[in-house]
Amino acid sequence: MTADLTLRDIQEARERIRPYVHRTPVMTSASLDALTGAQIHFKCENFQKVGAFKARGAHNAVFSLSDAQASRGVVTHSSGNHGAAVALAARNRGIPAYVVMPSTAAEAKKSAVARYGGRVTLCEPTQESRESTARRLTAETGAHFVHPYNDLRVMAGQGTSALELLEDVPDLDLIVCPVGGGGQLSGVAVAAKGLRRAIRVIGAEPAAADDAQRSLRAGRLISAGNPLTIADGLRSSLGELSFALIQAHVDDIVTAGEESIVRAMRLVWEVMKIVIEPSSAVPVAVLLDRGLPAAGLRVGVILSGGNVDMDRLPWLEA
Amino acid sequence: MTADLTLRDIQEARERIRPYVHRTPVMTSASLDALTGAQIHFKCENFQKVGAFKARGAHNAVFSLSDAQASRGVVTHSSGNHGAAVALAARNRGIPAYVVMPSTAAEAKKSAVARYGGRVTLCEPTQESRESTARRLTAETGAHFVHPYNDLRVMAGQGTSALELLEDVPDLDLIVCPVGGGGQLSGVAVAAKGLRRAIRVIGAEPAAADDAQRSLRAGRLISAGNPLTIADGLRSSLGELSFALIQAHVDDIVTAGEESIVRAMRLVWEVMKIVIEPSSAVPVAVLLDRGLPAAGLRVGVILSGGNVDMDRLPWLEA
Repeated sequence: MTADLTLRDIQEARERIRPYVHRTPVMTSASLDALTGAQIHFKCENFQKVGAFKARGAHNAVFSLSDAQASRGVVTHSSGNHGAAVALAARNRGIPAYVVMPSTAAEAKKSAVARYGGRVTLCEPTQESRESTARRLTAETGAHFVHPYNDLRVMAGQGTSALELLEDVPDLDLIVCPVGGGGQLSGVAVAAKGLRRAIRVIGAEPAAADDAQRSLRAGRLISAGNPLTIADGLRSSLGELSFALIQAHVDDIVTAGEESIVRAMRLVWEVMKIVIEPSSAVPVAVLLDRGLPAAGLRVGVILSGGNVDMDRLPWLEA
Repeated sequence: MTADLTLRDIQEARERIRPYVHRTPVMTSASLDALTGAQIHFKCENFQKVGAFKARGAHNAVFSLSDAQASRGVVTHSSGNHGAAVALAARNRGIPAYVVMPSTAAEAKKSAVARYGGRVTLCEPTQESRESTARRLTAETGAHFVHPYNDLRVMAGQGTSALELLEDVPDLDLIVCPVGGGGQLSGVAVAAKGLRRAIRVIGAEPAAADDAQRSLRAGRLISAGNPLTIADGLRSSLGELSFALIQAHVDDIVTAGEESIVRAMRLVWEVMKIVIEPSSAVPVAVLLDRGLPAAGLRVGVILSGGNVDMDRLPWLEA
């Protein structure tokens, strides 16, 4: 793989990960179409292995390694779904996974990593501590490092959902995809534009974590800092690789407020009868708020995940 | 249609309702298979129109009427999903629907009926008041009465889910279906046994509303009284028609406790990422508790509906 990401890379990723991930269904909702004025096709990555699209990128990264590279296992850092995804991919390849997690990560996330056989090492809840702990583990174990999003193999894997979506619904006008670190949005944009030049690809992020929008407008990478948003999957800042790909292939980044995100999440549960996490609700919120002109258009929405603490539903929290 | 219910009736119902209802998907879950030891195929009627299987029976009843019978509209009584289903079916046929609802019914259920164009008449929360109010409305309006479950046209409609399920998974050993008034269980049993003689069909009900189990064992209809169970769709007693069909075609009735039902409901939300209502969780609870020997068997489970008040989730209630 070169320093660039191509449709071909994503097509190869799809073949590579096919035995290990679900081909998730695409759902529609007459009620949500009526409320948004669009014809929405929801790509249900909440039904993906480990409950999120992260299974795609992790499997592509882990199964791209040569036997020599893979022999000592893999290391990553993650506060959530990527850690579980790497643990599962490593188990499927029969190698160890070392997952660095902040001590503040939810217990459910830590036990998910352990359930898939990952070995959890806790660190301080800072980016520096994550990275230095991962470096130390890499040095100690000889395992191969897999970054959660700033990695072309991970991005290629995440883009495979767009191949499936466009196979099921070839004539989409638009795809809206959540953006945190930008790995998924990069992969989706390269795949979608590669298959269908006229399609528009839009990233959706919380207004409270709008580093991607500001970076795209400023033309330089601006860090999110430590943003406070209910969409816990979208708190990361863009990486250098994802920023370059987003500049090249994404048409716009739009934002949604916290209340809109919670309202959209609840509405999807009520109307579609599916469980999505707050990050997945961000594109829906944008469409419900008409923050993106989509009336009459055929819109693909990536519902990126469904991992939610059922004891702490945001509309019931004080 | 005769006083009996046949596979042919259900096949005809399927053609009749096809334009108006969803062919719902069948889902599987490796996690739930591991927990139960069975291979479970979930028929997702929570994704059905109006959020429940009731759309099937209501459409079959309303579209079975002659133009003369239908001309003044339809009357029914319901505290929940059946009312919304009849309202939608009547709107699809272009006739009025008069729905008698107890004054204690949830606001969300009343507004759902109204949203589909149904005209709500409130009554006292007793069976007598429901029936007398429905009789009065029938006399006043000349509309045709559709009983929520003790009606062969309704049962034939509810049975259509089993035709679809066995088309998708022909080699099932067993189907487990919730039982309240028994309309769905009757239709499912007639359809399943008609297509596959060796299949076993089991009803699942709350231990707190075990009138079907007691009736089947006693060989005579025993009323549930006014049972208190979280599974609000399963509080009704069997009707005479459904009891006769269940005696003829159902192999057994099994029960689940309230805590098991809530635990199963939450587990399905967490693991399968789908929203099911407590009634749908009863068959899952039975399988998780091993209240039914199903290890190694191919089991169909009807997830009957997904209408839940998101402000009042049972595992969060005191």
